[in-house]
Amino acid sequence: MSITVVGSIAFDAVKTPFGERERMLGGAATHFALAASFFDTVRVVGPVGDDFGDEELAVLATRGSDISDVERVPGGNTFFWKGEYGWDLNSRETLATELGVFEQFEPKLSEAARASEVVFLANIQPELQRRVLELCTAAQFIAIDSMNFWIETAREALVDVIGRVDCAILNDAELRELTGKPSLVAAAREVMSWGPSSVVAKQGEYGAALFTSEGFFALPGYPLEIVVDPTGAGDTFAGGFVGYIARNLGRSGDDAVLRQAMAYGTALASFQVEEFGTERTQRLTFDEVQSRVEGLRRMTQFDLAAVSLGAP
Amino acid sequence: MSITVVGSIAFDAVKTPFGERERMLGGAATHFALAASFFDTVRVVGPVGDDFGDEELAVLATRGSDISDVERVPGGNTFFWKGEYGWDLNSRETLATELGVFEQFEPKLSEAARASEVVFLANIQPELQRRVLELCTAAQFIAIDSMNFWIETAREALVDVIGRVDCAILNDAELRELTGKPSLVAAAREVMSWGPSSVVAKQGEYGAALFTSEGFFALPGYPLEIVVDPTGAGDTFAGGFVGYIARNLGRSGDDAVLRQAMAYGTALASFQVEEFGTERTQRLTFDEVQSRVEGLRRMTQFDLAAVSLGAP
Repeated sequence: MSITVVGSIAFDAVKTPFGERERMLGGAATHFALAASFFDTVRVVGPVGDDFGDEELAVLATRGSDISDVERVPGGNTFFWKGEYGWDLNSRETLATELGVFEQFEPKLSEAARASEVVFLANIQPELQRRVLELCTAAQFIAIDSMNFWIETAREALVDVIGRVDCAILNDAELRELTGKPSLVAAAREVMSWGPSSVVAKQGEYGAALFTSEGFFALPGYPLEIVVDPTGAGDTFAGGFVGYIARNLGRSGDDAVLRQAMAYGTALASFQVEEFGTERTQRLTFDEVQSRVEGLRRMTQFDLAAVSLGAP
Repeated sequence: MSITVVGSIAFDAVKTPFGERERMLGGAATHFALAASFFDTVRVVGPVGDDFGDEELAVLATRGSDISDVERVPGGNTFFWKGEYGWDLNSRETLATELGVFEQFEPKLSEAARASEVVFLANIQPELQRRVLELCTAAQFIAIDSMNFWIETAREALVDVIGRVDCAILNDAELRELTGKPSLVAAAREVMSWGPSSVVAKQGEYGAALFTSEGFFALPGYPLEIVVDPTGAGDTFAGGFVGYIARNLGRSGDDAVLRQAMAYGTALASFQVEEFGTERTQRLTFDEVQSRVEGLRRMTQFDLAAVSLGAP
């Protein structure tokens, strides 16, 4: 059993009100792998440049992830992103994006990566996501992410590839933009009509919502006194969510499993944002994750009260 | 047993992507009363002008609310607000605010209104909120709302009055602005250090979060295919929340009661936004409310999974 993730491996420069990092390991595939590796073997597919060192490779391989599909492009530079967050971390400005080796990226995938039962198509060009899908003929559960750039420049290809997956994991604003529907419920329903049996709306600090044919489920973000760096929270969530489903693959259509997966994704994302980049998730233990999942349960349960409507 | 609410009674002109109303009954005290009246007798305190008709008074009196403290000011005009919402209803622009009779408003309160065991200080000048408190000597549970205008122009008076109540019910952005703390957890903790034993952060479509000494609880907004007019949702939430606590006053410090109150507030607010102004809540039945409370419970429950960490 393994999970193949195809997406960016990057160097990030990030400034938040709590500090900054000039150059640290980042990228969607990286954050996904660090989370999903708690649950299954992750096969990381993506390009890096000559500037990518053994130290970074070692972090990618945390908890046994397989990095043999990480393609080092001679003479190339690793994808670089630079951004700065506003004071409450809910707004961010991209200051630089240098595609580097990503510009010419053509996913190849080893036999092992093609044979994974679970696939996560992180945010890359929709056409490339479709090609990955065509290679992964053994996949039993496929999830996808994307971003506003592809909605605006390659919507048709994106809708096509979403129609071929089991679960779309997007920000709520992206779901609205993708479908042109102001109501998140209507937007999720529209996306499900294209093919996916479930849709997850990521809502930043507010948590995440799950839409399935059985209905609706939502979890708040895990409450934190300090958020240091939100970069990668969505991909970490996806890693926990998809990882948990991989672990329970025979029941991947089961609403109870999807709800539990939401809790693991939420708990993992809450650790991710407590420090810069991969700093926190590198040394995270499963006991810590489990403890926050239990905390989330306590924070969301309530008894039903029988209110009598007699005279007060 | 009764609940006294002091706040605006208004005419609203509202335009949303789903339609518009040139002049309809609105105001914080109005929306609060229509929700809280499911649980207890509500005594509505606020001024109106000559332009306020018997038809509007009859709506205010829905489900037995006592309107004898509604003060009709001869020669005056009722408070008027005009606003327009953006396409996803998450942004709104105020086009006009005419204070009218509210400009000279000085809360008087009848003996009966002063004797209420529960008081809601809707969004008015903090100094007036404090005077109401001083009149309500029998109050056992007091909740307060406010807005960015008072945070920016009367912060000291606002902090003072918040220090005298049991529960502050504010938007999450207001909590951040009020305390200068970017973290909602830190902001709520700061407000609780001033006096209140609980803080509710209203989060619009994302729902609401409750902070108490016992911890954190959050509920998503009830998922709706169509939201017609969000005006008054926060006050309707407060009406359900405070009303439910009034109904269970002996246990108003009980976390279980506060959580249930969150559910009733959330359910009531979800009906409020389905039509313009008071149109939906006027004819709402308690069975409908109870049904959404049960729905919210189903949408937020998950089992704890025991994930083994053996080899996948």
